[in-house]
Amino acid sequence: MGLSQIIVTSSAPVYYLTGQWVDPHERMLALYLDDTGRGVLFGNLLFKLNQQVFPQQIHTDNDDPTAGIAKILKPGTVGIDKFWSAKVLISLMEKRPDVRPVIGSAPVDTARLIKDEQEIEALIHASKMNDEVIAFAISSLRDGVIEAELMIDINREFSARGSDAPTAQIVAFGPHCAEEHHESDSTVIKKGDSVIFDLYTPISRYWCDMTRTVFFGEPSNKQKEVYDIVKKANAAGIAAVRPGTPLRDIDRAARSVIESAGYGEYFTHRLGHGLGLDCHEPPDVSAASEAVAREGMVFSVEPGIYLPGEFGVRIEDLVLVTKDGCRVLTSAKK
Amino acid sequence: MGLSQIIVTSSAPVYYLTGQWVDPHERMLALYLDDTGRGVLFGNLLFKLNQQVFPQQIHTDNDDPTAGIAKILKPGTVGIDKFWSAKVLISLMEKRPDVRPVIGSAPVDTARLIKDEQEIEALIHASKMNDEVIAFAISSLRDGVIEAELMIDINREFSARGSDAPTAQIVAFGPHCAEEHHESDSTVIKKGDSVIFDLYTPISRYWCDMTRTVFFGEPSNKQKEVYDIVKKANAAGIAAVRPGTPLRDIDRAARSVIESAGYGEYFTHRLGHGLGLDCHEPPDVSAASEAVAREGMVFSVEPGIYLPGEFGVRIEDLVLVTKDGCRVLTSAKK
Repeated sequence: MGLSQIIVTSSAPVYYLTGQWVDPHERMLALYLDDTGRGVLFGNLLFKLNQQVFPQQIHTDNDDPTAGIAKILKPGTVGIDKFWSAKVLISLMEKRPDVRPVIGSAPVDTARLIKDEQEIEALIHASKMNDEVIAFAISSLRDGVIEAELMIDINREFSARGSDAPTAQIVAFGPHCAEEHHESDSTVIKKGDSVIFDLYTPISRYWCDMTRTVFFGEPSNKQKEVYDIVKKANAAGIAAVRPGTPLRDIDRAARSVIESAGYGEYFTHRLGHGLGLDCHEPPDVSAASEAVAREGMVFSVEPGIYLPGEFGVRIEDLVLVTKDGCRVLTSAKK
Repeated sequence: MGLSQIIVTSSAPVYYLTGQWVDPHERMLALYLDDTGRGVLFGNLLFKLNQQVFPQQIHTDNDDPTAGIAKILKPGTVGIDKFWSAKVLISLMEKRPDVRPVIGSAPVDTARLIKDEQEIEALIHASKMNDEVIAFAISSLRDGVIEAELMIDINREFSARGSDAPTAQIVAFGPHCAEEHHESDSTVIKKGDSVIFDLYTPISRYWCDMTRTVFFGEPSNKQKEVYDIVKKANAAGIAAVRPGTPLRDIDRAARSVIESAGYGEYFTHRLGHGLGLDCHEPPDVSAASEAVAREGMVFSVEPGIYLPGEFGVRIEDLVLVTKDGCRVLTSAKK
């Protein structure tokens, strides 16, 4: 990017560079890096920073958290990590009007795009655990099952398999399946419901993410038809994955199947997202993506059709781009 | 603040002003308000905005999310909500170099400081549920209990009582109690352990938050001594709460008890935080706080003593400032 200095602030890239995971909540975390090789980690006393990679400067809740960074910034442009909060960014800019902030996550994001061997192992392991948990989830469907309770059971299964924290899994019944991000509630399953399980959790910091759709009772002809279209779209997306292919072409490959079947307007989101230390990270797999598939990338292929008031179907697999195609990390049956 | 325009962006203040809860994740949510009474809500198509308070402008993942706001901003100063991401703020500033961002959460935060009758009812209800769940948690302690599993059980109990989402409760055994923000893991309880339960969840959007410390087996004399000091500090903090009292004096009242007992250096955090639609929101109850207690405020009083490698004790209650003192929302015994 031609930047001579950047400030890295989110948990995942700081962990990637230091080996320590810090969840800063509303407090300030910032790793300053410049092109002379200088690096300084700024954090709150509460974080108990014990990484050994960079010298650190610790502030307390009674200090001005940006005072230290303001002192070491060089005049000119500085790359700022994309999710840093306005609170600290504005405070820093007020102290240093000679510094111009630009969005500067790309250097670390680009490094993180290509997973190394250890990362791939961690991602494979996490997806294997997800295969087990989704089998549990599907086998748990019976009369009387409640969305929110099943979500808790799913978290218990993830916890028993080493997940780092409980997360708000998507468990959606019937018309709730037509909401892309349904919050599980006290809804009881009904015969004829579509059921979406979109299950994701970090295990040793690396995420898994999978969606399966099943039907409670015999599916209707329309449900079968829509399911088959989404399944074909998922397969077409996966078949298009190989090094050198623009990610927008992979989105297109899956989307074309749904459009040709007449459901294009009901596939309302991008085909997929990168995944690693964050559940959603680059690359973006969408019509607007400018990225190209490269060996070592991991991303989701998750077409869906959402029919408001009726039902919805989404099928999501994770793929690892390999030398001559891809390896699907998700094994649960469709 | 003398501002003629602000941009409100976090889930809680947007809900406070519109009645719709949106969790924007990495996408852009922004409510523009100006001093002519104009308001426009900007959001992503995926959010399914259905609030009726403000006109809305919807963007998709293929649009530039800040293009719309850039068009309606007036030249001069604009107040920016504290947690807006650098990504959108920088993108907006690049389009409008004639606009100067300042931190601008105070207008809505200040309104939110004073809870109305409905909010107080919701907070009382949530704390009542927490009383029940902490009783469950304490009664669950027995040989073989594992931190992370107990956390899942606690989430199940919260879920059965209407919590909005599972959260990473703090369940800490023994030396883990000396970490202020321990992540529950596979540790098994041992005789003589201190046990910290710091339980919090949103119920119908309003949070509860309580900490209790108990001991598994007979506590040592030192454990008893430290427990009694923290209990006295908690009581001293609560006793100091009345309208007109600076919040730093409430912090002092509790902290003095711990300092006088010789443990001042082991009480490493502020006394408390405001709570409502967010688990942590203004007012700040710390030595650096410039706020004064006012009727209708709700905040935590949570002194602690943390002895690295040994054990820790924290006791946290929520208080509602009343006309002539306070009402403690937390009833679980100490």
